[in-house]
Amino acid sequence: MPEIRRDPVSGRWTIVASTRTERPSDFASGKISKSKKNCPFCPGNEEQTPPEIYCVKSSKENAWRLRVVPNKYPALIPSLDAECLKSEGLYKRMEGIGNHEVIIETPDHFRQLHEMAEEDITEVFKCFVLRIREIKKDKKIKYIMIFKNYGRHAGASLAHPHSQLIAMPMVPMRVEGELDGAKTYFSQKNSCVFCDMIREEISFKKRIVEENDFFIAINPYASRFTFETWILPKKHLSHLENTQEDYLKNLAGVLKSTVKKINHSLGDTSYNILIHTMPAQEGASDFYHWHIEIMPKFSYMAGFEWGTGFYINTVAPERATEILNLGKIYDK
Amino acid sequence: MPEIRRDPVSGRWTIVASTRTERPSDFASGKISKSKKNCPFCPGNEEQTPPEIYCVKSSKENAWRLRVVPNKYPALIPSLDAECLKSEGLYKRMEGIGNHEVIIETPDHFRQLHEMAEEDITEVFKCFVLRIREIKKDKKIKYIMIFKNYGRHAGASLAHPHSQLIAMPMVPMRVEGELDGAKTYFSQKNSCVFCDMIREEISFKKRIVEENDFFIAINPYASRFTFETWILPKKHLSHLENTQEDYLKNLAGVLKSTVKKINHSLGDTSYNILIHTMPAQEGASDFYHWHIEIMPKFSYMAGFEWGTGFYINTVAPERATEILNLGKIYDK
Repeated sequence: MPEIRRDPVSGRWTIVASTRTERPSDFASGKISKSKKNCPFCPGNEEQTPPEIYCVKSSKENAWRLRVVPNKYPALIPSLDAECLKSEGLYKRMEGIGNHEVIIETPDHFRQLHEMAEEDITEVFKCFVLRIREIKKDKKIKYIMIFKNYGRHAGASLAHPHSQLIAMPMVPMRVEGELDGAKTYFSQKNSCVFCDMIREEISFKKRIVEENDFFIAINPYASRFTFETWILPKKHLSHLENTQEDYLKNLAGVLKSTVKKINHSLGDTSYNILIHTMPAQEGASDFYHWHIEIMPKFSYMAGFEWGTGFYINTVAPERATEILNLGKIYDK
Repeated sequence: MPEIRRDPVSGRWTIVASTRTERPSDFASGKISKSKKNCPFCPGNEEQTPPEIYCVKSSKENAWRLRVVPNKYPALIPSLDAECLKSEGLYKRMEGIGNHEVIIETPDHFRQLHEMAEEDITEVFKCFVLRIREIKKDKKIKYIMIFKNYGRHAGASLAHPHSQLIAMPMVPMRVEGELDGAKTYFSQKNSCVFCDMIREEISFKKRIVEENDFFIAINPYASRFTFETWILPKKHLSHLENTQEDYLKNLAGVLKSTVKKINHSLGDTSYNILIHTMPAQEGASDFYHWHIEIMPKFSYMAGFEWGTGFYINTVAPERATEILNLGKIYDK
């Protein structure tokens, strides 16, 4: 059983999951095998994954468009027991209760996000919404993080297009920080900081990467990473899982165009995509606004960033927007 | 002039320093040239760095043991003007005022930290103390972070042994978080959380990597990174710059032995070393305790960690201690 340990100084949590060292060696070396050979996510190799949790069938007989399976090397494990904080002298820990699932986005090993059909991307988001709604029925689950690691520098271990979902028994520190910041802003200005940011960006124009009636993609003012891009619904909405289907279709379009621009300007760069949404057990919020963060990774994080949470970005976001929109190639 | 931008949601700061893209191409590709050829930190190439700030001469004529120079591609730049927070609509920013220095630890291009003489390591720490005392005379400087990036995965751009110092006009968010946590602990227990941790580790025994009369090196209970190691002075002390010289000699011994063990068990692994100390303008504190964090880097940080500040560590710290102390080789 993995355990979750709390740092007594900062309150930050670490999952100590020794089972994960049993992952295939392509992970350990930091290399990703791009070959289809032995890919556990490819059609025909379904028995290599733990039993399927959810599946979208294709119109072709016996074929699938999307599968959800438990992660074979889970960071957290479901349990019927109630979670409970235990003391070890000065320290505190919990059992590693939760869910760790893999969403296999397409049967096609080589079709990356920006090459997928919009309706297939919509299907992926519909699946996220369904899985969150299902998992949050378990009141022990306090936060559900959905993320995608693409490429070696972003921590990916397998090349086949997939996202991951981790459902955990507490709200993580960095999410708490964002919620607190948004709450403080709301208490001062009586408006949502994300809604105000969207208004500001629409009037300033120089940091907009993509926009339709429902969503906007921007390079945020204080981008930590070169070409960091956020996608936000224009209408205020705190929970991803309460997003209507017609919105998800529009999101698929904006996400695809945005990643296509990033791919065009930066080449086959590694990136992380994260979905930031309200804690699972909380009701609709006036102050928080769900959104997606895309973080290209082409340099290594250095000591200064680790020590301070203070980032150094060598390309101003306005310049990043210009490069992305003019279709220029960025010379790394 | 670089600028420091504040994220309006989380309050996190980013330095937007476009000048740093002019760094030599070995940085951009993420590769480090190990060769001495054209190394700006090697003796004979002194004119390749900006003019020297500080120097420890060798007994040999015209030779040096250690040099401090301004970073040629600084993230922050000294200024006589007072810093001031400016508004840009919803957003806030400051001019990128501060110091960014490089401490060239030895004239020997190939001598890594664990191979240096203890007295040379002592000299490096004496230099840190001197530079902090000098820089904090400028009351605009609120925090001084000293760090070392070794190896490609840790974000190093040059192979020649060196550390860096960044002095900045605000206390960064992650440092604030640590200070707040320590303050809260003190208010509840009337003792320093770090002092209590040292007592706990000495009695538990299983996470101690090195120890002498003055310092202890441990794998902390909630280690974020595999083989993460902290070094703490046993006596309560909040500021590195108030550490006495005989302590620094003892620190050099513990640091050298610790990094030697890490190098033996993990091979030539990248690592970051960070010094956590009190904010520059604050007086001696009962609740905070300066310390060093060593973070080996042999896998890439993935989306989950970014999104949550919640880490997954596949080797329990007690196991890491065992491997380091038995002199085993860890099979990555």
